[in-house]
Amino acid sequence: MIFLTRKAEFSAAHFYWIDSWSQEENERVFGKCANRNGHGHNYTVEVTVGGEVDPVNGFVVDLKELKDILDREVVSVYDHRHLNYEVPEFRTAIPTTENIAIAIWNRLEGKIPKAHLHRVRLYETHDLFADYYGELDGE
Amino acid sequence: MIFLTRKAEFSAAHFYWIDSWSQEENERVFGKCANRNGHGHNYTVEVTVGGEVDPVNGFVVDLKELKDILDREVVSVYDHRHLNYEVPEFRTAIPTTENIAIAIWNRLEGKIPKAHLHRVRLYETHDLFADYYGELDGE
Amino acid sequence: MIFLTRKAEFSAAHFYWIDSWSQEENERVFGKCANRNGHGHNYTVEVTVGGEVDPVNGFVVDLKELKDILDREVVSVYDHRHLNYEVPEFRTAIPTTENIAIAIWNRLEGKIPKAHLHRVRLYETHDLFADYYGELDGE
Amino acid sequence: MIFLTRKAEFSAAHFYWIDSWSQEENERVFGKCANRNGHGHNYTVEVTVGGEVDPVNGFVVDLKELKDILDREVVSVYDHRHLNYEVPEFRTAIPTTENIAIAIWNRLEGKIPKAHLHRVRLYETHDLFADYYGELDGE
Amino acid sequence: MIFLTRKAEFSAAHFYWIDSWSQEENERVFGKCANRNGHGHNYTVEVTVGGEVDPVNGFVVDLKELKDILDREVVSVYDHRHLNYEVPEFRTAIPTTENIAIAIWNRLEGKIPKAHLHRVRLYETHDLFADYYGELDGE
Amino acid sequence: MIFLTRKAEFSAAHFYWIDSWSQEENERVFGKCANRNGHGHNYTVEVTVGGEVDPVNGFVVDLKELKDILDREVVSVYDHRHLNYEVPEFRTAIPTTENIAIAIWNRLEGKIPKAHLHRVRLYETHDLFADYYGELDGE
Repeated sequence: MIFLTRKAEFSAAHFYWIDSWSQEENERVFGKCANRNGHGHNYTVEVTVGGEVDPVNGFVVDLKELKDILDREVVSVYDHRHLNYEVPEFRTAIPTTENIAIAIWNRLEGKIPKAHLHRVRLYETHDLFADYYGELDGE
Repeated sequence: MIFLTRKAEFSAAHFYWIDSWSQEENERVFGKCANRNGHGHNYTVEVTVGGEVDPVNGFVVDLKELKDILDREVVSVYDHRHLNYEVPEFRTAIPTTENIAIAIWNRLEGKIPKAHLHRVRLYETHDLFADYYGELDGE
Repeated sequence: MIFLTRKAEFSAAHFYWIDSWSQEENERVFGKCANRNGHGHNYTVEVTVGGEVDPVNGFVVDLKELKDILDREVVSVYDHRHLNYEVPEFRTAIPTTENIAIAIWNRLEGKIPKAHLHRVRLYETHDLFADYYGELDGE
Repeated sequence: MIFLTRKAEFSAAHFYWIDSWSQEENERVFGKCANRNGHGHNYTVEVTVGGEVDPVNGFVVDLKELKDILDREVVSVYDHRHLNYEVPEFRTAIPTTENIAIAIWNRLEGKIPKAHLHRVRLYETHDLFADYYGELDGE
Repeated sequence: MIFLTRKAEFSAAHFYWIDSWSQEENERVFGKCANRNGHGHNYTVEVTVGGEVDPVNGFVVDLKELKDILDREVVSVYDHRHLNYEVPEFRTAIPTTENIAIAIWNRLEGKIPKAHLHRVRLYETHDLFADYYGELDGE
Repeated sequence: MIFLTRKAEFSAAHFYWIDSWSQEENERVFGKCANRNGHGHNYTVEVTVGGEVDPVNGFVVDLKELKDILDREVVSVYDHRHLNYEVPEFRTAIPTTENIAIAIWNRLEGKIPKAHLHRVRLYETHDLFADYYGELDGE
């Protein structure tokens, strides 16, 4: 068993807001992130897959294929988008670092041939990131 | 003469759009950046000041003062904001990397005691940045 | 279950020395670190907490609260300090990368509401770091 | 139990090629990596060891000793080498990121006094890395 | 006048060798780089262009066009190549960091519309880089 | 003319203090840096030299020689030292980022064969650095 990790980047806008709360309540909990004009980040996602190394070609996963899946399922949907307005899963869930990591997991799970998805790490800034291992996996 | 550089970061949303152009023209020139919902970045600004080292305290500029000026004049105005909607200079100028660098220069010029402003470098992503030295300074 | 990691930085001085050893023995084991004038580092600490994402606000932990705890319990005590002389736990324990990671864990454990402390990672330089998961946690 | 990680770097050339395949098949699977003139990378290896902190000196492992082992067993063998032509294990195995991580594990296992080898992480570029925990260790 | 910088990366193999010198002389001057099997690097190139900001679109240069030129003239020629064997300018000149920076300048000069080429910076590793400003430009 | 830059690192302790000032005055000007127990940093120095590329070997400077000079003149004197107590030039000058950059320049000037010293850049942290070009050089 070996783990391979590929990084990708996307730039997106978001804000944090709960409709059923007052402006004051939203600002108290979410601070500057409650600004409904939105702000944004250069997000970095690290996708880790695990599996056996193919004894012939030395790969646990076809890197080109992994990159294509990541581009198609995540980057093309999130990059240069306003997450709250344009990405379906964030119409109901707030696009926090945690929720984006989970959403990326859900978009990738079951789509990677031969290897299994082990972890999604999402950096919002260089000093804040979330790790998600799926529903059953402990670390 | 010595130069001192301080970095600061802010997260903001923006988009590129010219009202007098058609949707097609905007998309042809600005690509994905023409999405008017906005997207965003973790911007990094490097402010370089030049001057003589004070022979008593060894400083070219008071670092605490430089940080306060940078926070007050730039970071507090740009951070967690939508540049197109909330920052006055980008109601008319498109918030490109180049224009943001120039705008930061204009916000800081003449406000730094003892040292002169030498350069503003603005990173939009880790692989794209603009340098501005003011109107008269060559490099 | 999801994990959230926040980084913080502090600059501190330290040295390695055991009083009951001779100068030669200290230098043999600790090399240049045995210089009792001290040297120093820009330390980076990564604090990882684990828990369930709150279905309402999308957070595993209140980030502002986590930052305040980290500042109060760790950064304000260690930053711009000489670890051997000014931080109580290093009057007896040598402030190695390993021992600082454990000390930070002990300072934070039980103080984070809702989430549990999962890991403390401490970088002494960019190419050396220690990870501590507490006494009972395997990785 | 605590984990300590040390990074090291080496620059090497490699290519991907299977003799029993045609040129077309090699290029289809390995893309630009099938160029038999070779290309190269600045590899970064992170070696993580686990163990108990020595209550006297505060170390889980002697850092100087760990660095010497890493230099002798890995860096001096791989640095400024063509992996396919000059490193024995890659005469038969293709030097993929995965296989190099495993090879480094095999070179280090059993050679580190007091601590056990926990993980070898190998970066081929800043956005691609493999993690290996040995044959029996899960993460 | 403003300066815009774009980074790009390529992975390549190279070695240092002068045919008219003996093996000993080559090794004395070039050390481990004289290994004719080649070794390699992840090179990073930063291309800086200077010019006036277009008052309409806010650009000093069309970024998409700059990226295309850089890909076509440099990355597609150098990436995953053995510089000594496959890139014409290094059949005669040794592919040192200095010479690669100059070669990239020569490949780009005169090809960038509207802006002028100001500087080529080439990183061979994170701690070694060369800057070239062309034949007439001082810094 | 081309410029070559080499980075090196050292870890050192320092503090800011003027004997003829009161404790209050020192703390007002220097803040936390006035703690006379000292604190410390991982400093990074970038040394840039300029010259002509040797048409035979492709070097502006012998890299091995540059590294040896940098190690001998700077790193071996500053690394794992308390700058205020152990480095002669900081018995009188306060070891600010600015003054350390100048001191490194003075230690290196005139010692580099064939190329001239162009710039010394000193990072105290990743977000603060000083650049010195000598007494006569403008940027």
